[in-house]
This record gives sequence, C-alpha cells and structure tokens, in this order.
Amino acid sequence: MVSLAVLGAGRIGQIHARNIAANGRVTLLGVFDVDGAAAQKLAGACASKVIDLDTAFTADAIVICTPTDTHADLIERAAKAGKAVFCEKPVDLSQERVRACLAVVEAAGIKLMVGFNRRFDPSFQALQARLAGGEIGNLELLTILSRDPAPPPVSYIARSGGLFRDMMIHDLDMARFLLGEEPVEVYAIGSALVDPAIGDAGDVDTAAVTLRTASGKICQISNSRRATYGYDQRIEAHGSKGLLRAGNMTQTTVESATATGFTTDPALPFFLERYASAYRAELDAFIAALVEGAPAYPDGSDGLKSLILADAAAESVKTGVPVKVAL
Amino acid sequence: MVSLAVLGAGRIGQIHARNIAANGRVTLLGVFDVDGAAAQKLAGACASKVIDLDTAFTADAIVICTPTDTHADLIERAAKAGKAVFCEKPVDLSQERVRACLAVVEAAGIKLMVGFNRRFDPSFQALQARLAGGEIGNLELLTILSRDPAPPPVSYIARSGGLFRDMMIHDLDMARFLLGEEPVEVYAIGSALVDPAIGDAGDVDTAAVTLRTASGKICQISNSRRATYGYDQRIEAHGSKGLLRAGNMTQTTVESATATGFTTDPALPFFLERYASAYRAELDAFIAALVEGAPAYPDGSDGLKSLILADAAAESVKTGVPVKVAL
Amino acid sequence: MVSLAVLGAGRIGQIHARNIAANGRVTLLGVFDVDGAAAQKLAGACASKVIDLDTAFTADAIVICTPTDTHADLIERAAKAGKAVFCEKPVDLSQERVRACLAVVEAAGIKLMVGFNRRFDPSFQALQARLAGGEIGNLELLTILSRDPAPPPVSYIARSGGLFRDMMIHDLDMARFLLGEEPVEVYAIGSALVDPAIGDAGDVDTAAVTLRTASGKICQISNSRRATYGYDQRIEAHGSKGLLRAGNMTQTTVESATATGFTTDPALPFFLERYASAYRAELDAFIAALVEGAPAYPDGSDGLKSLILADAAAESVKTGVPVKVAL
Amino acid sequence: MVSLAVLGAGRIGQIHARNIAANGRVTLLGVFDVDGAAAQKLAGACASKVIDLDTAFTADAIVICTPTDTHADLIERAAKAGKAVFCEKPVDLSQERVRACLAVVEAAGIKLMVGFNRRFDPSFQALQARLAGGEIGNLELLTILSRDPAPPPVSYIARSGGLFRDMMIHDLDMARFLLGEEPVEVYAIGSALVDPAIGDAGDVDTAAVTLRTASGKICQISNSRRATYGYDQRIEAHGSKGLLRAGNMTQTTVESATATGFTTDPALPFFLERYASAYRAELDAFIAALVEGAPAYPDGSDGLKSLILADAAAESVKTGVPVKVAL
Repeated sequence: MVSLAVLGAGRIGQIHARNIAANGRVTLLGVFDVDGAAAQKLAGACASKVIDLDTAFTADAIVICTPTDTHADLIERAAKAGKAVFCEKPVDLSQERVRACLAVVEAAGIKLMVGFNRRFDPSFQALQARLAGGEIGNLELLTILSRDPAPPPVSYIARSGGLFRDMMIHDLDMARFLLGEEPVEVYAIGSALVDPAIGDAGDVDTAAVTLRTASGKICQISNSRRATYGYDQRIEAHGSKGLLRAGNMTQTTVESATATGFTTDPALPFFLERYASAYRAELDAFIAALVEGAPAYPDGSDGLKSLILADAAAESVKTGVPVKVAL
Repeated sequence: MVSLAVLGAGRIGQIHARNIAANGRVTLLGVFDVDGAAAQKLAGACASKVIDLDTAFTADAIVICTPTDTHADLIERAAKAGKAVFCEKPVDLSQERVRACLAVVEAAGIKLMVGFNRRFDPSFQALQARLAGGEIGNLELLTILSRDPAPPPVSYIARSGGLFRDMMIHDLDMARFLLGEEPVEVYAIGSALVDPAIGDAGDVDTAAVTLRTASGKICQISNSRRATYGYDQRIEAHGSKGLLRAGNMTQTTVESATATGFTTDPALPFFLERYASAYRAELDAFIAALVEGAPAYPDGSDGLKSLILADAAAESVKTGVPVKVAL
Repeated sequence: MVSLAVLGAGRIGQIHARNIAANGRVTLLGVFDVDGAAAQKLAGACASKVIDLDTAFTADAIVICTPTDTHADLIERAAKAGKAVFCEKPVDLSQERVRACLAVVEAAGIKLMVGFNRRFDPSFQALQARLAGGEIGNLELLTILSRDPAPPPVSYIARSGGLFRDMMIHDLDMARFLLGEEPVEVYAIGSALVDPAIGDAGDVDTAAVTLRTASGKICQISNSRRATYGYDQRIEAHGSKGLLRAGNMTQTTVESATATGFTTDPALPFFLERYASAYRAELDAFIAALVEGAPAYPDGSDGLKSLILADAAAESVKTGVPVKVAL
Repeated sequence: MVSLAVLGAGRIGQIHARNIAANGRVTLLGVFDVDGAAAQKLAGACASKVIDLDTAFTADAIVICTPTDTHADLIERAAKAGKAVFCEKPVDLSQERVRACLAVVEAAGIKLMVGFNRRFDPSFQALQARLAGGEIGNLELLTILSRDPAPPPVSYIARSGGLFRDMMIHDLDMARFLLGEEPVEVYAIGSALVDPAIGDAGDVDTAAVTLRTASGKICQISNSRRATYGYDQRIEAHGSKGLLRAGNMTQTTVESATATGFTTDPALPFFLERYASAYRAELDAFIAALVEGAPAYPDGSDGLKSLILADAAAESVKTGVPVKVAL
C-alpha cells in the first residue's frame, strides 16, 4: 500500500493526517514536526508514529503542512528523492522562489499537488461542473464572497504575506477554477476596518478585488477578516442562460420561529468544519494521482498563478490603479 | 355602473368597503351599520355615505358583513328583492337554516357568493391551478396548517360556533378546493391548551382533523389559536409525481445574520395583511359575476358543505370516533 | 479494546460494520451472515474477517442486523452469554415475543439498545434538546412527515409487518422522543395509492396517524411509500412560545435560477445518505454504553412501546375507530 | 385638495398617474403628452382628462415623466411658476445643465424631489433603517447586484447616456443611501457581453463598480442588462456586528418538489411589479412634502451626486483607472 508521511502537526497537518489514517487505500508512515510533543499527540490520535525527516522521505509521498517558508525547500528535497508531494498553499511567498522550485519539480518529473481545498468542496465542485457543462451558457459575472469568522493574531499577519497572499489567494484560485479563462487585469482596494493593528502592520482586513478576462468576463471578490455569523463562503455565477450559486452550510437544519422571525443556524464556524468533506475529497484526488496515474491537480503552476494574482492585487492596493497580469 | 351596498362596518366590512371604493368598475352606494358612528367613520374613509337598510337594498348587489345570526335573513331579503349577494361565511351556524335560505336563493334565481377568501390568495390559487393541471399527478396527501396569532376573547368564542365552525371551516373549504373530490369521513380531536377559559366555554383552541375521500386521498388539518410568529397559513399537496406547497408571507425580504443565525421576518401578523390581495381578487370575482355573468363562486352550496364538515368535526370530537359525511 | 461482532451483512449491517471499523474506540471482531459471500465481501471492505456464530458470541457486544424473525432469538442468546446487544428495530413483530425476550434481557442484566437511528440525527437531536430546554414553551402540536422515495417490492411488504410496523414505527418513536409524555390514543387511516399490489397484499402505502397524550398534546404523522424528490423526513413542533422544525438535507448547496424559477437540490436519496451521521452517532452512543457505563438508549422498552403504537395504528385502520393505548 | 399634473404618458407616467388617481389625499388635474392618443388613453384609465402644458402648470405640483432632455427645462418652468416638482431621474445627462437647473430651483425656493424609487422599496427601506439604527455595527462592505431581465433596444441605448447614467445610477444612489458617507473614489469596468450591438453603440451591458469612502468602507456593484430569471435586485450590507440583506420578490410562495429539486417562482419580471409598492410610497413621500411640509427627499442634489458618480464610472471605464470624486 502507498505510504504517506505528514510534515507538520499543526491545524492543517492534523486534518490531513487523520484523513490519511482513516483512508483505506493508503498508509500513514508517520508524522514529523519540529515540535516533538505536537507530533506525538497527532501520531497518537492517528495510531501512527513520530518520525524524523529522513524517515519521512522514505515514504512514497510527502504531505507538507509545515510553515510557509519551509515549503519550497521540502518540495525540492522530495523532488530530488523522486517522491510525490502534496503541499499546502502557498509554495512560497516569492514568485521567484516558486519558479525555481517548480523548475526542480519539473526536472525531477515528480507529481506536485497544491492544497487549494475549496476546489474539492462538493457544492463548489458541482457548481463548476454545471457551469462547465453549459447549464447557464456563457459566464459573464462571477461573485465570490469570503469572510473569516475572526482576524488572526497580528503576529500571524506579519509573516502571512498579507490578506491577498494568505486569504484571498483561495478566492483568486476559485476565480481561475470557474472563469474558464485567465484574468488579464486585477484591481484591488483594501481597508483596515476590523482591527487598526492590522493596518499598523501594513495589511488590510477588508478588501475587494475586480478581475477581468480577455473576453470581458468580470469577477468581483470581497474578503473580510470578520463575520459574526460563522465562516462565510459563497459563490455566484451569472451567465447568459441563468445563475448558479453555492452557499454556506449549517450544523443542523433546525429553524425556529418566534416574534423575532424565522431563524436558522449560523454558518459552520470555520474551515475545519466547512471544508471537512473537501479535505477528504482533496486527499482522494491526491491518492488517485499516486495510485491511478491521475494528474496532480491543482498543481504547482496553479499555485504560482494564484500567487501572481495575489501579488498583483497587493500591488494594485499600493499603486491605486489596476495591474495587468499575463498568466 | 353597478352599485354595491355594504352592510356591517366591522373589521371585514371595512376591507370590502375600501376595496369597493377603490375599484374602478363599481360604485359604493353606501355603508349601513346599526352602530351609526362606525358606519359614519367607514363611509367617510371611503368617500361614501351612511345609508339605512331600505336604501341599501336599492343597490344592485348587497355585501353582507354583519354578525352571523343576521346573514340568512339578509340574504333572503336580498333574494326577494332580486339582488345579488356577497355574504361573509357562514351563511348560518345551523345547517337547517342554511338549507332554507339557499332554497329561497334558488327560488329567486339570484347570485350568492360566500366569502371564502383563501380561495383567492394568489399562492393558494396558483397551487390549486397547478395541482388541477396535473403537475404532481394524483394528489395523495394534503396537509393544511392554520394558526391564528392569538385567541379571540372568550366572549367571542361563545357565539362563534366553536373552533371548527369559526376557524377550521376555512381549512375545510381549502381541503374541498384542493382535493378534487369530496371527503366522506371526518375525524377530529381537540384540546384547550392555549387558554383554559376556552375549554371552560366548551370549545377547543388546538385541533387536528383527518379527512378521507372515497378514493382514499387523505387530508390532515391542524389548527391553533396561537402562533407567536404571526398568522401561519400553509398548504402542502403531495402527489404521485411530486409536491406543491405554499407558505407564509413576510413584510420584507430582509434577512439578518449574527451569531444567533440567519433570521427573516415573522409571518404577516393576521388576515388583514395576509389576505389583502385575496380580498381584492375575491371582490373582482364577485364583480365578474355581476358584470360579466360569471358564476358566483364559491356559492351557497360551498358554504353549506364546509359547515357540514365543520359540524362533523365537532361531532367527532364529542363522540371520539370518525363521522361519515355525504356531500 | 472492546470488540463487536456484526450479525447480518445486508444494507444495514454494512453501515454498522463500516462505522465500527472506522471507529477508533472499538474493534470489529468479524462479520457473520448465512450468505457467506455477502459476509466475505463486507469483511473485506472493513479489513475484518468472516466469523461463525459461535465466534461472534465471543465478542464483547453483538450488533444484530439479521432478518427480523431472528432478532429475539439472537438477543436471548446474547443475554444468556452476558453480552451487550445493539439490535436493529424491531425486536420482533409480536408484542408477546418482545415481552418474553425483554424478560430474558432483564434477567440477564445485559444492555440492549434498539436501533431507532433517527433519534441520533443531528437536526432532530438538536430540535429535541431545544424543545426539552423550554425554548418554545409547552409543546402543543407535533407534525411528522416521512416519505420513502419508492415502495419496497411487494414480496418485502408481506414479511415486513406492514407499513405501520415497518416504516411508521420510526415516526412513532420520534413522536415519543419529542412529545415529553406518552400517547394514550391512536387513530390511523391508510390507503393503497402508490401501488395497488400493496393493497392486494393487505397493506397500505399512504397513511395518516393522529396521537393524543393525556394532557391533550396532539401529534399528526403522515407516511407515503413514494416521494419523487428524495427521502422526505421532516418534523415540526409547535409550542406556546414558538415553533421549531427540522427539514431535509441536500447533496450540495447549489441553487440555479432560470425562467422556471430558483431550484435547489432534491432531498438526499434515502436513509443511507440522510442518516449517515445519525448512524455514526448511534454507534457512539452504544460505545458509550459499553465503555463508559452510559445507559443503553433507546432500549428494549422503547422498542416495545413503538410496536404497541404501531399495532394500535394497524388496528385502528382495521376497525375504523381510535384505539386506546397504555404505555 | 392638492392637485398634480402628470407630464408624460409613457411607462413611468402611467405608474404615477394611476397612483395619484387612486390616492385619496390628492387630485390628478390631468395628463399631458405630446402624443395626444397616449395622453387620452392614460387620462381615461385614471378617470382624469388630457390637458395642455399651460393648464398643467396651473396645478399645485408637477410630476415630470417626459423624455430626459426635457426635464431641466420643465423643472425650471415649474420653479419660475412656484410649483413643487417631482421629476423622474435624471434631471439631465449633463452635470452643468443640472447645476444650472438646481440654481433656478434654489432661487425659486420650490421643492424638487427626484425619482429614485428604490429608496422607497419596503425591504430596502427596512434594511437602511436597521443599518442606520446600528443593528450590524459599522458598515464595512456593501454589495449591490442589479440585473435587468433583458437589454433595451439599441436605439434606446444611444440616447440613454449609457449603462452607468441610465441603469447603474439607481445602484449608485442606493450606495449613497446606505453607506452613511459619500464615496470618494470610483472604479469601473464594463463589457458588452449580452449584445455586441450595445458595444458597437459605445456602451456596455455588463459592468462592475467599486466605491470607496473616506473612512475606507467598500461598496461593490454589479449590473447586467440580462437575467433569465426575472428582475434581480439585491443588496447585502456587512458590518462589524453582522449582516443584513434584502432580496428578490416572487409572484407567489408556491414551491414544487420533483426529482429535479425544489423550485420556487422566478423573481418578479421587472420594475413595474418589483417596485409597485415603492412607487406608491414614493408618491406618499412627495405628498407629505406638499401637504405636511416634509422635506422633498431625495432631492436635486441627490440627483446631481448620483450623476457625478455615474459620470466618474463612465470615465473610469474609458481611462482604465479609478476616478476621484468630491461630493
């Protein structure tokens, strides 16, 4: 059976390690983390073991969930060892470093899948399939709303690359996933409305992006680092023949009615809950790439292209004008 | 232009008088009420005048909104005068009296329309039309929920004929409107859960009825004299090819989201708001009967049949067993 | 680790065996079925093994998913062996046999949990908890709608005990779960509208039941063996302070809009999908009973009481009058 | 009683004339149109009469529903005659002409109300009131979607001033209505995706605008000249304490369920239906300004400010960069 090693026992590493352990088609070789206690705890929960890095690279495939600044090096090490890689986004915060890393990957001929989990959300995936199937004709306007329940600590903001590279990059990837052609221009504005300290740190917590494709399709994205009603994740595609949209999920279907009105549950709290099935489907896709020879998808170039769009958005905020991009 | 006289300046008389006054196809001859001040106030609001009964009967058509125990006499007087009649339900609380009255109506050949306003609600009417059009195949199960926002005063209960004749009679009429065949059996249970004084007065405030038709279609109705979230009026028809349902209306489409969840408006508060357009459409139907020779619909026999079902339900509650009916 | 043996490798046995295999707190000792190939297939899918009955009874707990007529005997055998039992509903179609079996269980002092999966549905469970917490005051009217996507083969009907014992028993259990007091009277009517062959077999496929409790609470249940739009499972509780309801689940949140209107997914197709999380939570509850000393719940007496209600409903259909019950 | 004269018997003139005729507080002096037959038809429908322009200006107030290029002249004539004016948007397509006209209005001291009907939509009005009342804290992100069911004829496009001045001006006014502070920057992009002839005429049919206020609030607007599912009019306000949104209205509440899913009505077809109650409330507001001394609201400066935003949007499309505005 194909073996996988998980590097990084943080929040996202836990998701992947548990899914690997529960998946009947692969084996979890072990968990590595520089924080041995964290690795031990996760390994225990998965009935697996703590491993060192050298052992990890004896697995058939490497699942990289470590801090961003280690991603490219680990990918290159895996490439040189001929191992397939699943790496959480982003590959790196520097386009140059990403390009160098992808060159190593290509030279080695290994499979590299980048963790854009939302592409595997059942609702977004169904929306994409129906859109691609022509159900609403030509896509004309795409609207993506994405709001986190609460801002991360300012300490995180500093090393995150900023809202566009850290948070909106997911929405930029979704735009690419759905638009059917690449954006050619990016306009962005942003404000620090949620927490002034975020602004002091040089970042924004509320932002809007407008993308245009060569044929004139338009995409509007908005992000907020705050939503009192849960993790808000919505997409709406408007086309020549109709509209398709996908919305939030709730814990239960219970609705109450009182003099206040009719009330349903808030949205699921955060990504762990909202994208639980997306993470499982994402792993299935990686396993299919490992076992059945399916292409690794989305791949390193998808990671690079989303980073280019995020960089362009950040630049647009700085310069105040739209930025042209060529993907 | 056809002239109408409104008898009774209470809550329902006000609705009809205002709709008549605002309708471009007919004239409001005037308003009669034994309470002169009430008549004056309504006449003023309608730019019309107070009239006495004799004058009222010179109109082309009589709209009866007086207390129930005067309905049959007024209908008969109108019949003898050859005037068309719109009468609020019920014609009378006694089947015998209704039959005698309808005989007079028939002998006179006048048109008599009985005020089952819900048949003219746009949503219920659309549901009926789609059902009759075969959209969901054969109707198998019909569910009717009807809940008033608050119980009437116990003094009203006493002369109302009880929940089945006063409130559920509307739902029994809806059942006949939708079932496509007459009920042959009625089972009912009821409780006084909202206000013990209602029970002391010999009535119930919470009730459930089961109807069966000859071919085996089943209808479940439930009533409550209380709903904290507005006037609750819902219908669901389940057939061999699918389901059709019609629900409540709200004042606005505004929805809020907070940590509590997603909240929409409560249902419209009561029948004045909920059935505002139904009352207008009902008047249009009566005018069509007057002006265009359309049949008066629903007519006296519909009033009688719903009363028979309501009486059967009241009897079932007393005897504890289902009651057979032959409509 | 506590070991469980699964008896019966049919549709429901597969659910339980897979959930046991994926649960980190217990071990699946093996799978037994008189059809060895079925047992083999399921054991393989669970990375477990085929076992004979004698071996099965060496497990710490027995999960009975065999045909109904074997349940009571297997429970008794487990009781005599001192093993805890999870048994799919019903214990038996004969009240007398159930009582005898429960006496054996009680004498042995073993834990017996009966498989009323819907009590563990997250939405129904939340509704029950909020109801019990007083959120809507005193429950007055309870409405339960339950519709299967398609009727079972007539051959199944014959040995199922009929709609009330086979299908509505779940809704009768839900009524008990939610009403907060036992029903004292049952009225039922039924028709064969979906398939005349079901009527020829002496059963009904469309049914309505009315329950009344001692304090006058009312519950209306309706069942159909057909629903073109998926497996329809809804509950609505109406109380003195408001309303709580729980509805259907869908595969995705995708909504489309065209000239036809706004369209969301149909309901999940059937119980495997609709109650997937309920089955997992049900197993967790059984494990809690095994490992943590929690009570087995719902237990044998719950199974008996629902059967008494189902028998009363069937009798009511035959006699045409309500049937009193004393639970 | 206060008298009003309606100038222009087109689509919008018909709405206002009928509402005036049905309103009990004012009199419709008559209807003027250069097309005598159109004036006659509308006057007949309102039980009013055709009047010439000189007679029109004897009314207490003038309701201007004529083609755009006549608005400013008619307003000035009314101002000089000391008559109050309700004028359909826009006052003129030229900011300079509008300023000159408003100077005449101000000099004359007459009341001028400009027809931004959406401010009177019950749902949008409730949303604004709840927002202003602090229900969701500080507004951070505002999303406005507006889609016409079908593009106008290209001949109309030519004299309409283009999408931004003709269609999006309503959304720009809504943004001002809701943002609580003026936009300081406008970015717009647009495409001709619906009908290439619209592009050939130098206009766009699909557009997105981003507004920013001084404090950093962000508003995203999108427009399309096409929506297959009715007239799509939605607003969503996201604030520090939650979200408020208002959506589309439907003809009925009927929902169907089949294997395709659950389907509700499409959105109401176009502005006549969607804003029927808004037009009545707008007239009530104008009457309150006439009769009760309430301020005319929105007024000429609101008309000018929305035009400035629309012009800025059009300029942004041409130049490809954001345009600063100072309202």
